[in-house]
Amino acid sequence: MFLSKRMAIIGVGLIGGSLARVLRQQGEVGEIVGIGRTEPNLRRAVELGVIDRYCQNPCQGVQGADLVFLATPVCSIASVLEKIAPFLAPGCIVTDGGSVKESVVAACERLMPAGTFFVGGHPIAGTEQSGVDASFDALFQGKRCIVTPTDTTDKHALRRVESMWECAGSEVVRMDAHKHDRVVAAISHLPHMVAYSLVNAVEAYDRLDESILKYSAGGFRDFTRIASSDPAMWRDIALMNGTAILEMIDSFSNCLGMLRTLVEQGDAAGLEKFFAESKRSRDAIL
Amino acid sequence: MFLSKRMAIIGVGLIGGSLARVLRQQGEVGEIVGIGRTEPNLRRAVELGVIDRYCQNPCQGVQGADLVFLATPVCSIASVLEKIAPFLAPGCIVTDGGSVKESVVAACERLMPAGTFFVGGHPIAGTEQSGVDASFDALFQGKRCIVTPTDTTDKHALRRVESMWECAGSEVVRMDAHKHDRVVAAISHLPHMVAYSLVNAVEAYDRLDESILKYSAGGFRDFTRIASSDPAMWRDIALMNGTAILEMIDSFSNCLGMLRTLVEQGDAAGLEKFFAESKRSRDAIL
Repeated sequence: MFLSKRMAIIGVGLIGGSLARVLRQQGEVGEIVGIGRTEPNLRRAVELGVIDRYCQNPCQGVQGADLVFLATPVCSIASVLEKIAPFLAPGCIVTDGGSVKESVVAACERLMPAGTFFVGGHPIAGTEQSGVDASFDALFQGKRCIVTPTDTTDKHALRRVESMWECAGSEVVRMDAHKHDRVVAAISHLPHMVAYSLVNAVEAYDRLDESILKYSAGGFRDFTRIASSDPAMWRDIALMNGTAILEMIDSFSNCLGMLRTLVEQGDAAGLEKFFAESKRSRDAIL
Repeated sequence: MFLSKRMAIIGVGLIGGSLARVLRQQGEVGEIVGIGRTEPNLRRAVELGVIDRYCQNPCQGVQGADLVFLATPVCSIASVLEKIAPFLAPGCIVTDGGSVKESVVAACERLMPAGTFFVGGHPIAGTEQSGVDASFDALFQGKRCIVTPTDTTDKHALRRVESMWECAGSEVVRMDAHKHDRVVAAISHLPHMVAYSLVNAVEAYDRLDESILKYSAGGFRDFTRIASSDPAMWRDIALMNGTAILEMIDSFSNCLGMLRTLVEQGDAAGLEKFFAESKRSRDAIL
């Protein structure tokens, strides 16, 4: 019982490559066609056995596919779909892995030809690495994948996309796209904005004083690891999910402002309460 | 060649216990006397072979010691020294492991009787754990230890304290106490203030909306790990190093404010530049 006879993956990097690896390993896909702009990366993907063949032209690449996974940068998902839409086979299901959903899902739903189906998705998984060489079959194992159906989403297409992520080892959660964007703004986008700002603040200080960063111990390195993520990807996310990110930055700044007041006033009891509440919440998600 | 014939360690927890373990392992200390308020912890330290014997009264415990290590919470270092000062043996060297130095060193230097010597120190090492059971001999291995001599610090005492940290496997750096406090505010205290605030902000949001925290992936857990640190310890640090911490919070808020403006204006080039500069600084400290 195949999930797909022919699957097309547009963007064979960490996410697209890892999904191809696990679905192949599970014996769930007949043929996997990789689509992308960088030929050496696609050749490498064939060498590694991640995909069966590749095609640099997405309009040709998706022909005859019953399942298409859009793993391109989040800013270009809708424009890629616009190109390939006229070439989709009848009954084809298209899904994506973009980390912003409300605007992407709305745009994609409008672009789908009659008799083809779109389902928005977002696997909560990743590393700071990119490219097919960084992909591995266990990337989604034990992770959550959020799918964001709308009132018009086809129920069979939704179930098939959910099955795909379950095959990859993920726990699938259905969520409204608007809520999704606020959840990821809180747990992922805000921490990235904070980490990038923290490194820049310490670096600015470093230039005034002498080399502070060289004294940084493991704690600082661990805390700022996510500031090593791809700048172009995070530029796109900041552009696409700006409203929710601004809301979370303001909520965070408000909390930091309360802590600043406690420090300034030397309020021992208030400081301990602030830290203890945070520790309690943090320990609860261990 | 002994570093010390009899060493007294006041506060046999993660830091004090780990130092005892490594100095004993190196064969550098004749006898180690553990001093603390919690008898079960001290008994446990004897059982584990971390110390030779214990004493709950610090004034008795330090008698005859040629080296005293103050590993108490940073707020109480000066008050403990005030108690034990009259009981220090002639020639005794006292050093500490407090993470705030300017005020502590100034207070301690004033308290030392003639013919005894104080040297301020701060090992840049630690975990989120505490207590003697969490101590281990490799804690300081390959880490930096900052010592903060002043114009009046005895050169022989300084060298002996530096030797102690070198025996523990650390690279010793001499630094002015004022500069030390700004360096640790930047690389340690600020990240803790930010992590505690971030968890509280997301938690506040969580109460309004439904359970956001449960969707948090590894990234959020790693990023907020330091918010699981001991609230009482961080209350003390925030009280003791308030000025430098406020300065760093303001510098960080300024950077975050610039990023907020870029997000609000949808400035693609500015966002990518902001993230790329941060990534460059972060990758340089890997």
